[in-house]
Amino acid sequence: MDTSFSVPHTNHSQGTMIKVSATSRTSAVAGAIAGVIRDHKHAEVQAIGAGAVNQAVKALVLATGYLKLDGIEVACTPEFADVTIDDKVRTAIKLVIDPQ
Amino acid sequence: MDTSFSVPHTNHSQGTMIKVSATSRTSAVAGAIAGVIRDHKHAEVQAIGAGAVNQAVKALVLATGYLKLDGIEVACTPEFADVTIDDKVRTAIKLVIDPQ
Repeated sequence: MDTSFSVPHTNHSQGTMIKVSATSRTSAVAGAIAGVIRDHKHAEVQAIGAGAVNQAVKALVLATGYLKLDGIEVACTPEFADVTIDDKVRTAIKLVIDPQ
Repeated sequence: MDTSFSVPHTNHSQGTMIKVSATSRTSAVAGAIAGVIRDHKHAEVQAIGAGAVNQAVKALVLATGYLKLDGIEVACTPEFADVTIDDKVRTAIKLVIDPQ
């Protein structure tokens, strides 16, 4: 299982994907979301499993607050995404975050 | 604990609040979200705990698909909300859903 990060993992090939696990620190993920939005005006947060989705949503609440201080209002559209891990296909939740 | 619903519970005093638990059926919650958005152009989904938040987000993915078929694009802003249950204050996640 190489999807479990205690700190958020940014996919540098895309620059906008943040992978979150159930053990990710909320504040670290929130900072990553805010940073990616400031740099790219678009962020995607990927989470697999209830604990990870919960961390992702809590981080998004915090990030929304940080960005509001900068005058950036964001909204999110969640999607399902199929992710292959160790040759098994799992369904991830992807939170697609864009400025309004 | 009177917040655990196996089907989504709409608060008729507001008309737009849907309470979701970890055991809520995703498709039932999704139908409720889509119905409330069609009727009120605004919906709020409240969830306490990781399992409930996960159900709420999955339901929102489905509801977003249903509404897109009607030509309605929605986006969500998550917030924290303090909820008092049995004299104890718990932190809920509230997904605020509006058409774009």
